[in-house]
Amino acid sequence: MNYRITLAYDGTDYCGWQIQPGLPTIQGLLNDALERLDGAPVTTFAAGRTDAGVHAEGQVVSFRLSKKWAGANLRKALNGNLPPDVRVLDVATVADQFHARFDAKGKTYRYRIFVAEVMNPFWVRYAWHYPYALDSAKLVEDAQTLVGTHDFTTFTVANCETKTRVRTITEARVECETDLLTLYFSGEGFLRYQVRTMVGALVDANRGRLNAGSIAELIARRDRALIGAPAPAQGLTLLKVEY
Amino acid sequence: MNYRITLAYDGTDYCGWQIQPGLPTIQGLLNDALERLDGAPVTTFAAGRTDAGVHAEGQVVSFRLSKKWAGANLRKALNGNLPPDVRVLDVATVADQFHARFDAKGKTYRYRIFVAEVMNPFWVRYAWHYPYALDSAKLVEDAQTLVGTHDFTTFTVANCETKTRVRTITEARVECETDLLTLYFSGEGFLRYQVRTMVGALVDANRGRLNAGSIAELIARRDRALIGAPAPAQGLTLLKVEY
Repeated sequence: MNYRITLAYDGTDYCGWQIQPGLPTIQGLLNDALERLDGAPVTTFAAGRTDAGVHAEGQVVSFRLSKKWAGANLRKALNGNLPPDVRVLDVATVADQFHARFDAKGKTYRYRIFVAEVMNPFWVRYAWHYPYALDSAKLVEDAQTLVGTHDFTTFTVANCETKTRVRTITEARVECETDLLTLYFSGEGFLRYQVRTMVGALVDANRGRLNAGSIAELIARRDRALIGAPAPAQGLTLLKVEY
Repeated sequence: MNYRITLAYDGTDYCGWQIQPGLPTIQGLLNDALERLDGAPVTTFAAGRTDAGVHAEGQVVSFRLSKKWAGANLRKALNGNLPPDVRVLDVATVADQFHARFDAKGKTYRYRIFVAEVMNPFWVRYAWHYPYALDSAKLVEDAQTLVGTHDFTTFTVANCETKTRVRTITEARVECETDLLTLYFSGEGFLRYQVRTMVGALVDANRGRLNAGSIAELIARRDRALIGAPAPAQGLTLLKVEY
Protein backbone atom coordinates (compact mmCIF):
# COMPACT_ATOMS: atom_id res chain seq x y z
CA MET A 1 0.00 0.00 0.00
CA ASN A 2 1.28 3.47 -0.94
CA TYR A 3 0.93 6.22 1.69
CA ARG A 4 1.23 9.99 1.69
CA ILE A 5 1.88 11.82 4.95
CA THR A 6 2.05 15.51 5.86
CA LEU A 7 4.90 16.24 8.22
CA ALA A 8 5.75 19.28 10.39
CA TYR A 9 9.14 19.64 12.01
CA ASP A 10 11.29 22.11 13.88
CA GLY A 11 14.52 21.68 11.91
CA THR A 12 16.78 23.39 14.49
CA ASP A 13 18.33 20.22 15.86
CA TYR A 14 18.54 18.30 12.58
CA CYS A 15 20.98 18.04 9.67
CA GLY A 16 18.12 18.45 7.20
CA TRP A 17 15.71 16.00 5.58
CA GLN A 18 18.09 13.66 3.78
CA ILE A 19 19.40 10.61 5.60
CA GLN A 20 23.12 10.73 6.47
CA PRO A 21 24.80 7.93 8.43
CA GLY A 22 25.48 8.93 12.04
CA LEU A 23 23.74 12.31 11.79
CA PRO A 24 20.30 13.29 13.08
CA THR A 25 18.05 13.82 10.05
CA ILE A 26 14.30 13.88 9.57
CA GLN A 27 14.40 11.09 6.98
CA GLY A 28 16.59 9.00 9.28
CA LEU A 29 14.05 9.32 12.13
CA LEU A 30 11.10 8.61 9.85
CA ASN A 31 12.74 5.59 8.20
CA ASP A 32 13.58 4.16 11.63
CA ALA A 33 10.00 4.65 12.82
CA LEU A 34 8.59 3.07 9.63
CA GLU A 35 10.97 0.10 9.79
CA ARG A 36 9.88 -0.49 13.39
CA LEU A 37 6.24 -0.58 12.26
CA ASP A 38 6.64 -2.52 9.00
CA GLY A 39 9.36 -4.95 10.06
CA ALA A 40 11.66 -4.15 7.11
CA PRO A 41 13.44 -1.09 5.66
CA VAL A 42 11.09 1.41 4.02
CA THR A 43 12.08 3.87 1.25
CA THR A 44 10.72 7.42 1.71
CA PHE A 45 10.39 10.27 -0.81
CA ALA A 46 9.95 13.88 0.35
CA ALA A 47 8.49 16.66 -1.79
CA GLY A 48 11.29 19.03 -0.72
CA ARG A 49 14.64 17.94 0.66
CA THR A 50 15.02 20.66 3.29
CA ASP A 51 18.56 21.61 4.34
CA ALA A 52 20.04 21.57 7.85
CA GLY A 53 18.15 23.86 10.24
CA VAL A 54 15.26 24.46 7.82
CA HIS A 55 11.73 23.86 9.14
CA ALA A 56 8.58 22.39 7.65
CA GLU A 57 4.92 22.97 8.39
CA GLY A 58 3.63 20.97 5.43
CA GLN A 59 6.33 18.64 4.10
CA VAL A 60 4.82 15.75 2.12
CA VAL A 61 6.38 12.29 2.11
CA SER A 62 5.36 9.11 0.30
CA PHE A 63 6.33 5.48 0.97
CA ARG A 64 5.04 1.94 0.58
CA LEU A 65 4.29 -0.38 3.49
CA SER A 66 3.62 -4.09 3.33
CA LYS A 67 1.03 -3.78 6.11
CA LYS A 68 -2.31 -2.05 5.62
CA TRP A 69 -3.08 0.74 8.10
CA ALA A 70 -6.04 2.97 8.83
CA GLY A 71 -4.75 6.56 8.45
CA ALA A 72 -5.36 7.69 12.03
CA ASN A 73 -3.72 4.55 13.42
CA LEU A 74 -0.60 4.97 11.29
CA ARG A 75 -0.41 8.65 12.31
CA LYS A 76 -0.58 7.72 16.00
CA ALA A 77 1.90 4.86 15.64
CA LEU A 78 4.40 7.09 13.81
CA ASN A 79 4.04 9.99 16.25
CA GLY A 80 4.59 7.52 19.08
CA ASN A 81 7.93 6.63 17.46
CA LEU A 82 9.07 10.17 16.63
CA PRO A 83 10.40 12.97 18.90
CA PRO A 84 8.07 15.89 19.78
CA ASP A 85 9.77 18.24 17.28
CA VAL A 86 8.72 16.00 14.36
CA ARG A 87 4.98 15.39 13.95
CA VAL A 88 2.88 13.53 11.41
CA LEU A 89 -0.16 15.76 10.88
CA ASP A 90 -2.04 13.65 8.37
CA VAL A 91 -1.92 10.24 6.66
CA ALA A 92 -3.67 9.20 3.44
CA THR A 93 -3.54 6.13 1.25
CA VAL A 94 -2.74 7.04 -2.35
CA ALA A 95 -2.60 5.44 -5.81
CA ASP A 96 0.29 3.07 -6.32
CA GLN A 97 2.13 5.39 -8.72
CA PHE A 98 1.99 8.50 -6.44
CA HIS A 99 5.44 9.98 -5.71
CA ALA A 100 5.71 12.93 -3.28
CA ARG A 101 8.51 14.63 -5.22
CA PHE A 102 7.79 13.88 -8.87
CA ASP A 103 4.06 14.59 -8.56
CA ALA A 104 4.40 17.90 -6.69
CA LYS A 105 2.84 20.72 -8.75
CA GLY A 106 3.85 23.60 -6.53
CA LYS A 107 5.58 24.55 -3.28
CA THR A 108 5.39 27.52 -0.96
CA TYR A 109 8.26 28.56 1.26
CA ARG A 110 8.20 31.20 4.00
CA TYR A 111 11.24 33.20 5.11
CA ARG A 112 11.18 35.29 8.30
CA ILE A 113 13.51 38.20 9.11
CA PHE A 114 13.51 39.77 12.56
CA VAL A 115 14.54 43.38 12.01
CA ALA A 116 15.47 45.05 15.31
CA GLU A 117 18.65 45.96 17.09
CA VAL A 118 18.05 43.46 19.91
CA MET A 119 16.93 39.97 18.89
CA ASN A 120 13.80 38.53 20.47
CA PRO A 121 14.92 35.25 22.13
CA PHE A 122 11.71 33.52 20.98
CA TRP A 123 12.61 34.10 17.31
CA VAL A 124 16.22 32.86 17.54
CA ARG A 125 15.29 29.43 16.18
CA TYR A 126 12.76 30.68 13.61
CA ALA A 127 13.98 33.92 12.04
CA TRP A 128 17.09 35.62 10.72
CA HIS A 129 18.14 38.44 13.02
CA TYR A 130 18.97 41.41 10.82
CA PRO A 131 19.78 44.39 13.07
CA TYR A 132 19.33 47.17 10.49
CA ALA A 133 16.15 48.78 9.19
CA LEU A 134 14.90 47.59 5.79
CA ASP A 135 12.77 49.53 3.32
CA SER A 136 9.67 47.36 3.04
CA ALA A 137 8.33 49.12 -0.09
CA LYS A 138 11.58 48.36 -1.91
CA LEU A 139 11.53 44.79 -0.59
CA VAL A 140 8.03 44.28 -2.03
CA GLU A 141 9.09 45.79 -5.37
CA ASP A 142 12.35 43.81 -5.65
CA ALA A 143 10.61 40.58 -4.71
CA GLN A 144 8.23 41.10 -7.65
CA THR A 145 11.22 41.16 -10.01
CA LEU A 146 11.85 37.51 -9.12
CA VAL A 147 8.36 36.45 -10.17
CA GLY A 148 8.14 34.75 -13.56
CA THR A 149 10.19 32.20 -15.50
CA HIS A 150 13.91 32.90 -15.24
CA ASP A 151 17.25 31.14 -15.31
CA PHE A 152 18.10 31.29 -11.59
CA THR A 153 21.79 30.32 -11.93
CA THR A 154 22.78 33.37 -9.86
CA PHE A 155 20.62 32.10 -6.99
CA THR A 156 21.78 28.54 -6.48
CA VAL A 157 24.98 26.72 -5.54
CA ALA A 158 27.77 26.88 -8.12
CA ASN A 159 27.79 23.10 -8.55
CA CYS A 160 24.02 22.74 -8.81
CA GLU A 161 23.43 19.49 -10.70
CA THR A 162 20.16 19.88 -12.50
CA LYS A 163 19.39 19.67 -16.21
CA THR A 164 18.13 23.25 -16.23
CA ARG A 165 18.32 26.17 -13.85
CA VAL A 166 15.18 27.69 -15.31
CA ARG A 167 12.39 27.86 -12.74
CA THR A 168 9.07 29.66 -12.47
CA ILE A 169 8.13 31.69 -9.42
CA THR A 170 4.37 32.18 -9.44
CA GLU A 171 4.11 34.44 -6.38
CA ALA A 172 6.35 36.49 -4.11
CA ARG A 173 4.64 38.14 -1.17
CA VAL A 174 5.94 40.27 1.70
CA GLU A 175 4.19 40.81 5.03
CA CYS A 176 5.41 43.47 7.46
CA GLU A 177 4.64 43.44 11.15
CA THR A 178 6.53 45.34 13.84
CA ASP A 179 10.08 43.95 13.76
CA LEU A 180 9.08 40.95 11.63
CA LEU A 181 9.30 40.76 7.84
CA THR A 182 7.84 37.63 6.30
CA LEU A 183 8.45 36.64 2.68
CA TYR A 184 6.49 33.96 0.85
CA PHE A 185 7.67 32.37 -2.40
CA SER A 186 5.53 29.99 -4.44
CA GLY A 187 6.59 28.12 -7.54
CA GLU A 188 6.60 24.77 -9.27
CA GLY A 189 10.03 23.97 -7.88
CA PHE A 190 13.15 25.64 -6.49
CA LEU A 191 16.88 25.08 -6.95
CA ARG A 192 19.15 24.18 -4.06
CA TYR A 193 19.49 27.17 -1.65
CA GLN A 194 17.42 29.26 -4.09
CA VAL A 195 15.01 30.80 -1.58
CA ARG A 196 17.72 31.63 0.96
CA THR A 197 19.99 33.05 -1.76
CA MET A 198 17.15 35.20 -3.12
CA VAL A 199 16.44 36.50 0.39
CA GLY A 200 20.12 37.30 0.93
CA ALA A 201 20.17 39.21 -2.38
CA LEU A 202 16.94 41.07 -1.57
CA VAL A 203 18.41 42.24 1.74
CA ASP A 204 21.70 43.28 0.08
CA ALA A 205 19.73 45.15 -2.60
CA ASN A 206 17.71 46.84 0.11
CA ARG A 207 20.84 48.15 1.78
CA GLY A 208 22.36 49.27 -1.54
CA ARG A 209 25.01 46.59 -1.40
CA LEU A 210 24.50 44.75 -4.68
CA ASN A 211 27.50 44.97 -6.99
CA ALA A 212 25.23 44.04 -9.90
CA GLY A 213 23.04 47.06 -9.11
CA SER A 214 19.61 45.41 -9.23
CA ILE A 215 17.82 42.10 -8.85
CA ALA A 216 16.92 42.17 -12.57
CA GLU A 217 20.61 42.54 -13.45
CA LEU A 218 21.49 39.69 -11.07
CA ILE A 219 19.03 37.39 -12.85
CA ALA A 220 20.33 38.46 -16.27
CA ARG A 221 24.00 37.91 -15.44
CA ARG A 222 23.55 34.25 -14.38
CA ASP A 223 26.64 34.29 -12.18
CA ARG A 224 26.60 32.96 -8.62
CA ALA A 225 29.82 34.82 -7.83
CA LEU A 226 27.95 38.14 -7.97
CA ILE A 227 26.27 37.71 -4.60
CA GLY A 228 26.99 36.86 -0.99
CA ALA A 229 25.96 34.07 1.34
CA PRO A 230 22.43 32.67 1.43
CA ALA A 231 20.26 33.95 4.26
CA PRO A 232 20.58 31.65 7.30
CA ALA A 233 18.65 28.38 7.50
CA GLN A 234 16.56 29.08 10.60
CA GLY A 235 14.39 31.67 8.81
CA LEU A 236 13.16 29.19 6.21
CA THR A 237 10.08 26.95 6.39
CA LEU A 238 8.56 24.69 3.74
CA LEU A 239 4.94 25.75 4.23
CA LYS A 240 3.00 23.59 1.78
CA VAL A 241 3.16 21.40 -1.27
CA GLU A 242 0.49 21.25 -3.92
CA TYR A 243 -0.45 18.27 -6.10
CA MET B 1 24.80 53.51 40.44
CA ASN B 2 21.54 51.55 40.60
CA TYR B 3 20.27 50.01 37.33
CA ARG B 4 17.00 48.49 36.19
CA ILE B 5 16.98 46.20 33.16
CA THR B 6 14.18 44.50 31.24
CA LEU B 7 15.03 40.95 30.32
CA ALA B 8 13.48 38.46 27.88
CA TYR B 9 14.42 34.79 27.95
CA ASP B 10 13.45 31.45 26.53
CA GLY B 11 13.44 29.43 29.74
CA THR B 12 13.47 26.00 28.05
CA ASP B 13 17.11 25.21 28.73
CA TYR B 14 17.35 26.80 32.18
CA CYS B 15 16.67 25.75 35.76
CA GLY B 16 14.72 28.94 36.40
CA TRP B 17 15.76 32.43 37.47
CA GLN B 18 17.38 31.75 40.81
CA ILE B 19 21.10 30.99 40.94
CA GLN B 20 21.98 27.39 41.85
CA PRO B 21 25.57 26.19 41.95
CA GLY B 22 26.43 24.02 38.95
CA LEU B 23 23.08 24.50 37.22
CA PRO B 24 22.26 26.75 34.27
CA THR B 25 20.08 29.59 35.57
CA ILE B 26 19.21 33.03 34.26
CA GLN B 27 20.51 34.75 37.38
CA GLY B 28 23.73 32.76 37.18
CA LEU B 29 24.33 33.89 33.59
CA LEU B 30 23.46 37.51 34.38
CA ASN B 31 25.63 37.62 37.51
CA ASP B 32 28.58 36.21 35.56
CA ALA B 33 28.12 38.79 32.79
CA LEU B 34 27.83 41.63 35.33
CA GLU B 35 30.90 40.48 37.28
CA ARG B 36 32.86 40.41 34.00
CA LEU B 37 31.84 44.02 33.34
CA ASP B 38 32.13 45.42 36.86
CA GLY B 39 35.17 43.46 38.04
CA ALA B 40 33.53 42.22 41.25
CA PRO B 41 30.47 40.11 42.19
CA VAL B 42 27.15 41.90 41.65
CA THR B 43 23.90 41.16 43.52
CA THR B 44 20.78 41.00 41.32
CA PHE B 45 17.09 41.21 42.28
CA ALA B 46 14.37 40.01 39.88
CA ALA B 47 10.73 41.08 40.03
CA GLY B 48 9.56 37.49 39.63
CA ARG B 49 11.69 34.44 40.36
CA THR B 50 10.53 32.29 37.44
CA ASP B 51 10.72 28.49 37.85
CA ALA B 52 12.59 26.02 35.64
CA GLY B 53 11.35 26.08 32.05
CA VAL B 54 9.26 29.24 32.52
CA HIS B 55 9.85 32.10 30.04
CA ALA B 56 9.95 35.87 30.36
CA GLU B 57 9.20 38.63 27.89
CA GLY B 58 9.41 41.44 30.44
CA GLN B 59 11.30 40.32 33.54
CA VAL B 60 12.70 43.27 35.47
CA VAL B 61 15.99 43.05 37.38
CA SER B 62 17.79 45.64 39.51
CA PHE B 63 21.45 45.76 40.61
CA ARG B 64 24.17 48.22 41.56
CA LEU B 65 27.39 48.66 39.62
CA SER B 66 30.48 50.55 40.72
CA LYS B 67 31.04 51.77 37.15
CA LYS B 68 28.78 54.29 35.46
CA TRP B 69 27.31 53.17 32.13
CA ALA B 70 25.21 54.80 29.43
CA GLY B 71 22.10 52.60 29.10
CA ALA B 72 22.64 51.52 25.49
CA ASN B 73 26.28 50.65 26.14
CA LEU B 74 25.44 48.51 29.16
CA ARG B 75 22.70 46.77 27.14
CA LYS B 76 25.15 45.94 24.34
CA ALA B 77 27.91 44.86 26.73
CA LEU B 78 25.51 42.56 28.61
CA ASN B 79 24.02 41.06 25.44
CA GLY B 80 27.54 40.43 24.20
CA ASN B 81 28.13 38.36 27.34
CA LEU B 82 24.82 36.46 27.35
CA PRO B 83 23.62 33.57 25.12
CA PRO B 84 21.07 34.36 22.33
CA ASP B 85 18.16 32.93 24.35
CA VAL B 86 18.63 35.59 27.06
CA ARG B 87 18.39 39.23 25.92
CA VAL B 88 18.52 42.55 27.71
CA LEU B 89 15.85 44.67 26.02
CA ASP B 90 16.28 47.86 27.96
CA VAL B 91 18.51 49.48 30.58
CA ALA B 92 17.69 52.46 32.81
CA THR B 93 19.43 54.11 35.74
CA VAL B 94 17.13 54.34 38.77
CA ALA B 95 17.00 55.93 42.19
CA ASP B 96 19.31 54.35 44.72
CA GLN B 97 16.49 52.80 46.76
CA PHE B 98 14.76 51.11 43.76
CA HIS B 99 14.34 47.33 44.18
CA ALA B 100 12.90 45.30 41.28
CA ARG B 101 10.97 42.93 43.57
CA PHE B 102 9.87 45.05 46.52
CA ASP B 103 8.79 47.98 44.35
CA ALA B 104 6.79 45.94 41.82
CA LYS B 105 3.14 47.07 41.86
CA GLY B 106 1.76 44.45 39.49
CA LYS B 107 2.66 41.51 37.28
CA THR B 108 1.06 39.91 34.26
CA TYR B 109 1.60 36.27 33.36
CA ARG B 110 0.51 34.51 30.18
CA TYR B 111 -0.27 30.80 29.93
CA ARG B 112 -0.68 29.06 26.57
CA ILE B 113 -2.49 25.77 25.95
CA PHE B 114 -2.32 24.06 22.57
CA VAL B 115 -5.57 22.13 22.26
CA ALA B 116 -5.40 19.63 19.40
CA GLU B 117 -4.91 15.91 19.07
CA VAL B 118 -1.52 16.31 17.32
CA MET B 119 0.90 18.80 18.85
CA ASN B 120 2.38 21.50 16.62
CA PRO B 121 6.20 21.04 16.87
CA PHE B 122 6.70 24.82 16.96
CA TRP B 123 4.67 25.10 20.19
CA VAL B 124 6.43 22.27 22.06
CA ARG B 125 8.69 24.70 23.93
CA TYR B 126 6.02 27.38 24.49
CA ALA B 127 2.66 25.77 25.21
CA TRP B 128 1.06 22.93 27.13
CA HIS B 129 -0.21 20.29 24.75
CA TYR B 130 -3.67 19.31 25.91
CA PRO B 131 -5.14 16.83 23.39
CA TYR B 132 -8.82 17.17 24.39
CA ALA B 133 -11.34 19.86 23.47
CA LEU B 134 -12.02 22.53 26.11
CA ASP B 135 -15.17 24.60 26.52
CA SER B 136 -13.87 28.14 26.09
CA ALA B 137 -17.03 29.80 27.45
CA LYS B 138 -16.68 27.82 30.68
CA LEU B 139 -12.96 28.61 30.80
CA VAL B 140 -13.71 32.36 30.59
CA GLU B 141 -16.38 32.05 33.30
CA ASP B 142 -14.26 29.94 35.67
CA ALA B 143 -11.25 32.23 35.21
CA GLN B 144 -13.43 35.16 36.39
CA THR B 145 -14.06 33.31 39.67
CA LEU B 146 -10.37 33.67 40.46
CA VAL B 147 -10.45 37.47 40.11
CA GLY B 148 -10.52 39.38 43.39
CA THR B 149 -8.84 39.08 46.79
CA HIS B 150 -8.76 35.48 48.01
CA ASP B 151 -6.73 33.17 50.18
CA PHE B 152 -5.04 31.09 47.44
CA THR B 153 -3.74 28.31 49.73
CA THR B 154 -5.34 25.71 47.43
CA PHE B 155 -3.26 27.04 44.54
CA THR B 156 0.29 27.01 45.84
CA VAL B 157 2.81 24.50 47.13
CA ALA B 158 1.94 22.87 50.47
CA ASN B 159 5.08 24.27 52.11
CA CYS B 160 4.68 27.81 50.76
CA GLU B 161 6.62 30.03 53.14
CA THR B 162 4.92 33.40 53.03
CA LYS B 163 3.30 35.40 55.81
CA THR B 164 -0.04 35.31 54.05
CA ARG B 165 -1.51 33.39 51.15
CA VAL B 166 -4.00 36.14 50.42
CA ARG B 167 -3.44 37.66 46.99
CA THR B 168 -5.42 39.88 44.65
CA ILE B 169 -5.98 38.99 41.02
CA THR B 170 -7.02 42.12 39.17
CA GLU B 171 -7.66 40.57 35.78
CA ALA B 172 -8.08 37.13 34.20
CA ARG B 173 -8.50 37.08 30.46
CA VAL B 174 -8.86 34.25 27.95
CA GLU B 175 -8.11 34.47 24.21
CA CYS B 176 -9.16 31.68 21.87
CA GLU B 177 -7.59 31.09 18.47
CA THR B 178 -7.74 27.88 16.46
CA ASP B 179 -6.00 25.25 18.60
CA LEU B 180 -4.49 27.85 20.93
CA LEU B 181 -5.98 29.03 24.22
CA THR B 182 -4.15 31.87 25.92
CA LEU B 183 -4.82 32.91 29.50
CA TYR B 184 -3.60 36.17 31.04
CA PHE B 185 -3.49 36.77 34.80
CA SER B 186 -2.65 40.13 36.34
CA GLY B 187 -2.23 40.87 40.02
CA GLU B 188 -0.06 42.58 42.58
CA GLY B 189 1.80 39.35 43.26
CA PHE B 190 1.44 35.59 42.95
CA LEU B 191 2.33 32.66 45.20
CA ARG B 192 4.81 30.00 44.13
CA TYR B 193 3.29 27.88 41.29
CA GLN B 194 0.03 29.83 41.64
CA VAL B 195 -0.57 30.57 37.96
CA ARG B 196 0.27 27.04 36.81
CA THR B 197 -1.84 25.51 39.59
CA MET B 198 -4.81 27.75 38.70
CA VAL B 199 -4.47 26.74 35.03
CA GLY B 200 -4.34 23.05 35.97
CA ALA B 201 -7.50 23.50 38.08
CA LEU B 202 -9.29 25.44 35.30
CA VAL B 203 -8.59 22.62 32.85
CA ASP B 204 -9.71 19.96 35.34
CA ALA B 205 -12.88 21.97 36.03
CA ASN B 206 -13.47 22.25 32.30
CA ARG B 207 -13.37 18.50 31.90
CA GLY B 208 -15.62 17.90 34.93
CA ARG B 209 -12.78 16.42 36.92
CA LEU B 210 -12.73 18.61 40.02
CA ASN B 211 -13.48 16.70 43.19
CA ALA B 212 -14.34 19.99 44.88
CA GLY B 213 -16.98 20.65 42.21
CA SER B 214 -16.12 24.25 41.36
CA ILE B 215 -13.32 26.80 41.35
CA ALA B 216 -15.21 28.84 44.01
CA GLU B 217 -15.36 25.78 46.25
CA LEU B 218 -11.63 25.14 45.67
CA ILE B 219 -10.80 28.67 46.82
CA ALA B 220 -13.09 28.37 49.86
CA ARG B 221 -11.67 25.03 51.02
CA ARG B 222 -8.03 26.27 51.21
CA ASP B 223 -6.59 22.79 50.76
CA ARG B 224 -3.82 22.06 48.25
CA ALA B 225 -4.60 18.34 48.43
CA LEU B 226 -7.89 18.93 46.55
CA ILE B 227 -6.24 19.41 43.18
CA GLY B 228 -3.74 17.83 40.83
CA ALA B 229 -0.42 18.85 39.39
CA PRO B 230 0.30 22.39 38.20
CA ALA B 231 0.11 22.89 34.44
CA PRO B 232 3.57 22.36 32.88
CA ALA B 233 6.21 25.08 32.96
CA GLN B 234 6.68 25.63 29.22
CA GLY B 235 3.25 27.26 28.83
CA LEU B 236 4.05 30.07 31.28
CA THR B 237 5.61 33.46 30.49
CA LEU B 238 6.18 36.45 32.77
CA LEU B 239 4.90 39.12 30.38
CA LYS B 240 5.37 42.37 32.25
CA VAL B 241 5.94 44.00 35.61
CA GLU B 242 4.44 47.30 36.64
CA TYR B 243 5.94 49.88 39.01
